[in-house]
This record gives sequence, C-alpha cells and structure tokens, in this order.
Amino acid sequence: MNRSAEIICIGTELLLGDILNTNVQFLAKALANLGIAHYYQTVVGDNPQRIQQVLDVACDRAQLLIFTGGLGPTPDDLTIETLADYFGVPLVERPEILADILQKFEKRGRIMTPSNRKQALLPEGAEILPNPTGSAPGVIWQPRPDLTLMTFPGVPREMQVMWRETAVPYLQEQGWAESIIYSRTLKFWGIGESTLAEKVAPLLAQENPTVAPYASNGGVKLRISTRAATPEVAIACIDPVAQQIQTIAGADYYGEDDDTLATAVGRLLLAHNQTVSVAESCTGGGLGQLLTTVAGSSAYFVGGIVSYSNAVKHNLLGVALDTLDTQGAVSAEVAEQMAVGVQQRLATDWGISITGIAGPEGGTETKPVGLVYIGLAGPNNQVTHHRYRFGTLGGRDWVRHLSRASALDQLRRRMSLNCEVMP
Amino acid sequence: MNRSAEIICIGTELLLGDILNTNVQFLAKALANLGIAHYYQTVVGDNPQRIQQVLDVACDRAQLLIFTGGLGPTPDDLTIETLADYFGVPLVERPEILADILQKFEKRGRIMTPSNRKQALLPEGAEILPNPTGSAPGVIWQPRPDLTLMTFPGVPREMQVMWRETAVPYLQEQGWAESIIYSRTLKFWGIGESTLAEKVAPLLAQENPTVAPYASNGGVKLRISTRAATPEVAIACIDPVAQQIQTIAGADYYGEDDDTLATAVGRLLLAHNQTVSVAESCTGGGLGQLLTTVAGSSAYFVGGIVSYSNAVKHNLLGVALDTLDTQGAVSAEVAEQMAVGVQQRLATDWGISITGIAGPEGGTETKPVGLVYIGLAGPNNQVTHHRYRFGTLGGRDWVRHLSRASALDQLRRRMSLNCEVMP
Repeated sequence: MNRSAEIICIGTELLLGDILNTNVQFLAKALANLGIAHYYQTVVGDNPQRIQQVLDVACDRAQLLIFTGGLGPTPDDLTIETLADYFGVPLVERPEILADILQKFEKRGRIMTPSNRKQALLPEGAEILPNPTGSAPGVIWQPRPDLTLMTFPGVPREMQVMWRETAVPYLQEQGWAESIIYSRTLKFWGIGESTLAEKVAPLLAQENPTVAPYASNGGVKLRISTRAATPEVAIACIDPVAQQIQTIAGADYYGEDDDTLATAVGRLLLAHNQTVSVAESCTGGGLGQLLTTVAGSSAYFVGGIVSYSNAVKHNLLGVALDTLDTQGAVSAEVAEQMAVGVQQRLATDWGISITGIAGPEGGTETKPVGLVYIGLAGPNNQVTHHRYRFGTLGGRDWVRHLSRASALDQLRRRMSLNCEVMP
Repeated sequence: MNRSAEIICIGTELLLGDILNTNVQFLAKALANLGIAHYYQTVVGDNPQRIQQVLDVACDRAQLLIFTGGLGPTPDDLTIETLADYFGVPLVERPEILADILQKFEKRGRIMTPSNRKQALLPEGAEILPNPTGSAPGVIWQPRPDLTLMTFPGVPREMQVMWRETAVPYLQEQGWAESIIYSRTLKFWGIGESTLAEKVAPLLAQENPTVAPYASNGGVKLRISTRAATPEVAIACIDPVAQQIQTIAGADYYGEDDDTLATAVGRLLLAHNQTVSVAESCTGGGLGQLLTTVAGSSAYFVGGIVSYSNAVKHNLLGVALDTLDTQGAVSAEVAEQMAVGVQQRLATDWGISITGIAGPEGGTETKPVGLVYIGLAGPNNQVTHHRYRFGTLGGRDWVRHLSRASALDQLRRRMSLNCEVMP
C-alpha cells in the first residue's frame, strides 16, 4: 500500500512568526515512529480560500490529512467550518460536546462563554476526537472513502494528549502502521559536521541502513534508518553500523536518541556513585537547570551557587579577592577557585564552574565577548580548566548555550577518561 | 502590487521530526517586519521529484521563494542541483567561493574536505548570497523576470546573518517593502485565552487595527495589526487600542513585543534601584537563568543558591531542620525560609524561592506532582508565599516552566502593587 500522510498547520500567527511550530515536529516524529510516510508539511493562515487551495493540492497526493490549529473559540478559528464547506457537508451541534465543555468550565469554577458554544459544531458524519484537557474537540472524518482527516487544536499539550490517546490507536486499528521505519540517532559533541561526515564517508553511501548526518545546536547527529518487519530485524541491521561509528568517533560520541549531554553525565555519575555541584556566573543557573531536566537527577545533583556578582564569588564560593582583582572574574584562576569552592561547600565529588562574557556588553580587547572559562574540580584534588572563545556571532543566548553544553561535555570526557584509567 | 513570498524548507530531518524548524519562524517574522505578504510555508524532504512538485505549486502563487536547507557538503544536500535542473540551467564552479571556503578552513587550522568543493557550484546567472559564518553560500537568482529565488543553509545562525546582511538590503532595493504591516503584541499572564477574549470582545471584531488573541506557553497574547504608510500613522492607530486593552486587563498585562516576564521584572527592579536573588529547588537554576537572559541583568540580579538537597537548604539557606522534618521540603514554610535565607545571605532587596515536585516521581497523596510553592521576601520584612497546583498533564518540563514564570509573575505583581501603594 502506498498511502501517505500530510501535516497541515493552520494559523496566521505561524505566518507572522509569532509562535514556533513545535506541533509539526511532534507530529512528524510521531508519524515516523508509526512508520507512516509523510512527504510534505504545509502552513497556511486562518483564511478559508487559502485553506481550500491547500486542500486542493493535499487531497491529490495524501490519504491522511492531519490538521492543527483553528479550533479555538475565537472568530478567527475557521478550520472546521472551512473543511465542512469544502466537502459540502453541514455542521451539526453535538450535545455531548456542549455538555462536556460546560462541565469543564464548572469544574474550574468559571462560566462558559457564548463563544465556546461554537466548538460543539462538527461536520455531519465526523467522529469526535475527544480533547480531555481542553475545550476544543477535534474530529476524525472520512469525507471520502480514500481520505481521512484528523483535526487537533493548536495548543501543543492538548494536541499531544489527543494524539496519544485517540489518534494512535485509531491509526493502528486502520492498518496505517504496517511497515515500520526504525531509526537510531547517534549524537556527538566537539566535532564538526563535515569532519565527522568524512570520517564515516563509506557508511553515508550505503543503502540499508541509511546513515545521514546533520548539525544540531552546536553538536552533530548521525541518523541510522532501516525499514523492517520487526524490531529485532531492525536492531540487527542497525547495531553493527552504530558500533562501527562509535569506534570511529571515539570520545566525541556521547549518546543516542533521547540521550542528552545531561543524561550522559547523569549516567556516568550514577555508575560511579558520585555527586556534582555547580558554580555559575554568566549562565545564571542554566547549567543546574540543564542537569535537572533529567528526572531522578537528585541522586547525583546536590545544588549550586549562582555567583553573578563578585561579592557572591568571594563570600559564598571563597574565591580570593586578590585573584578577582588581578586576574578578573573571567579567568582560569577564578574558574578553578569557583569549581573547588562549590565542590567543598556542597561536599560533592565534582564541582563544575562557568565564568565568561556572554555579551553583548562587557567585552574588552583581551577579554572579548564569547570568552568563557570552565573549571572542573574532581576527586583526589584534580583541578583543571578549559578556555573557549565562542565569538559574538551567535549572540548572548548562543554563548550561554555553548557554555552549559561544553561544561557538561568536559565533565563527561573527564569521567570517561577516569573510567579507562582506573576501571 | 500584489506580490507575495513563500517559504520552502528542505530537509528530510524536518519530515522525521528530528529538528525543530526555527528557521521558518525567523523568516516569517522577518517578512512580516518588512511588510512582505506570505501565505504559505512548505516543508519537503531532500528529494528532487518532490522538491520540483513543490516548485510547480509555489511558482504559480508567489513571486519570491525563500529556501532553507540542503546546501551542505553531504550527498543528500540537493537544493541547488534541483533548482538548476528545474529551470534548465547548468551549474558552474565559482572560483571565488572555492577560495573563500579554502580560506575559512585554513583559518580554523582544518583541511578542506573534497565534499566541500560541491558548495562552489551555483546555477549560471545566479548571484552569490555570501555566507560569512559558514562554508555554504546561498544564491539570489531570477530564473524568470517575475520570480526571485533565495537559498539559505539550514543552520540557523548562518541563515540569520545572511538574511540580515544581504537579503534585507536586496529586498528593500528591489521595492519589496513598499507597504508595511505594523503590529504590536500585548502579553498577559494569569488569565485564560477565552476569558481575555470575552473581556475585549468588541475590539476583536473591529477592522483597523485588527486584534487577534492566542494562547502562548502558559500565557496569552493579543496581536494588534494595521497596514500603514508610515510608522507614525501605524502608532496613532495602534496606541489607543493598546491603551484600552491595558486598562481592561489590569495587572494581568505585563508587556509588549519583545518583553518577557524577565524583562518586565528587570524594568521594575531598575526603576526602583533594587536587587534580587533566587533560591531554587525543583527548577534547578532555571529561574536564575531566566532572569539572566536579559542583557545587563547584572545591574539587579546578584546570584542565587540552588538547593536541590535538604542539606543545602539547611546549610546554605538556613532553613530550619525541624521545619524540613515536620512540614517537608515542599511547603509554604520552607518556601518562605528559602526566600528569606537567600535575601539575607546575598544581601538583596528581594529574595524569590521555588520549591515543588516537578515529577514524574516523588508525589504523594497530600503532595502530588505539580505542587509548587513560591516564596517572596521583600523590603520591610514582608514575606509571602503562593501555592500552585500545576498538575501532571504537561510533564516535568511544563511544571518547571510554569514555576519559573509564576515566580517572576508574583514578583512583578508584588512590585507593581508596592508602586501603587507607595509611589
């Protein structure tokens, strides 16, 4: 069967660039997981004529159309009306939806607004796609035997629950998930995309599994994909290639799929039964935040000190006043003292520190914006630092992002190294 | 003139959901700022046939096509070849690009890989769109008199620099920015979308300026837009409506356009010449990070203590051991003691604290996942706390996001209140 899906996101706010379209990424990944092919994604405004133009194109090339957006209570939410109109079907008020909306409003102690009543109108013959966490329901609708439409609200959390609870079981039941694409993404930090691509060049040329590289947020990924009948067959196809790539990449490889630098570090700390604390200046707490994105990180993350001012660096971390005076807050010496200070005061095995100039102001000729020192205090009084020049092109957020990630990367490399030396 | 642009993003990784398409948001916003209409965004994989199908549709309805992705050195980067093929134009090696790529590699002490040579091939007659921060240049190309194509790499930072430095001046020169859409976005926290929409219902119905509401990441926005000849005319049209909305919304309104809760808080602190510090548990440093996203925040943000463990809460923040024992770490009392502790130890005017259960584990019947206390210690020994139940539906990241934002929101409300009471 050669069926495919297409994702159509409706919302003038997407055309104006007011919001980031995270829905399309979620749905793309979800379709890939189910092995449902999809070749096009389209965004169009809340405009009936243009939505119908998109339908003209999409109905010709796909058999499953997935819509997000335009289900809200406000007058510019037109998705359902436009679809009904396009297929020449009347809208019918569904009393069960009205009752559900009413109940949700009562539960929150609010009164239903008249505009919410509109959300109970659905095309005749369409099934309700329930929205357990919001007021706007979606539809699953076959206006023609060879065409299925699914509509979701634009609010990501509501859409995701509806996808998982109703859309996935429906698609499996309808035989949409027959042949499945399996893939594994290997992740790297500290190596450029083209350098890594050259190192693994023969693998990029092969057919099954396919290997595709891409740059991602300061790191690089390689995606290994194969189409297979069972997970076992897929794993047997992917495993040897993944193994080969890891050997080639060495320490630049840090994990796969849902792994992040934070989970990689967490795994190492758990394995060694060690703890970590952080001392942050220019990242303002972002390194601690990153470490604690991992559920269960309290097993190894104890806490940290955000020393945005020199007074805090001295009073709470014990950085020497004369070091601050002579070397400046952004220096190798201060980075090391911060790392040791937090390691000792929070009584952890490791202390990591970041001090740098995120910009846009505050740079000098000898210490330009983008200069960042990372300090690392480890067991047995081992203290090191790493100096980075992240430049000014990416801006403040980019310098802070690279600082956080590089700090985790250094801890990871250091711990992996320690493993090898003393197993 | 009724010309419009269309954004076409090329990359199989977008169809697989591997990456979030931030480029399309950047370009959408950039087009809106220039007043260039665009009605459709399309994503298609690295597949020549399907790219050409997208071109069939797009060339018919738009006069400016903006492409991202597929300019890299790897074999699956096919954008330039496919465009040249579609318009029947040969590719020609540009020696100046080859020299530039060579020089960039030398500068970084790396050797140019043979695959990078491909990036010097451009369609005959196309202008080079220089890429100052990467190896892949783009093109500005008019394959027909009524059609302009611009290609950008998929790497956001490279694309953005190319857009600002070359594309914008080119489009202005070519008369694309004649009639300009001006808009202002008002931002709200602590009120639902439909409640706010009801409050401002008559404004949503009017034609000029238009007012459109949308939910955004836990908050709500209202976008006011008008098409005008000059900024002055636009401001005169938007100002009274914005003023009216602010009056209606009261304390739920916190800022406009690029304002965030962090900039709103920063503005208040600067105006009062006051400082703040943070004590964080479940957010792990995220509140400090959020405050320091603002350049220049060192004027009011001093630092913080991340007390992920009870030991740190007691040792570094002075939270009483018997309060931790009897009330538990997630309690009103601990939140208040954390806020006071950090306020005193870091000698700031304000101390904000967050303690809660982000989940997915760690919840109990009386203290479920999503329960969060925010403590606020202010001048004159005023100490308060706020209790939230964010639920489990949104997951760990969502609870942490709402916690950070709500902490800033409470500080903002409290400071605004203080202003009114003691001006």
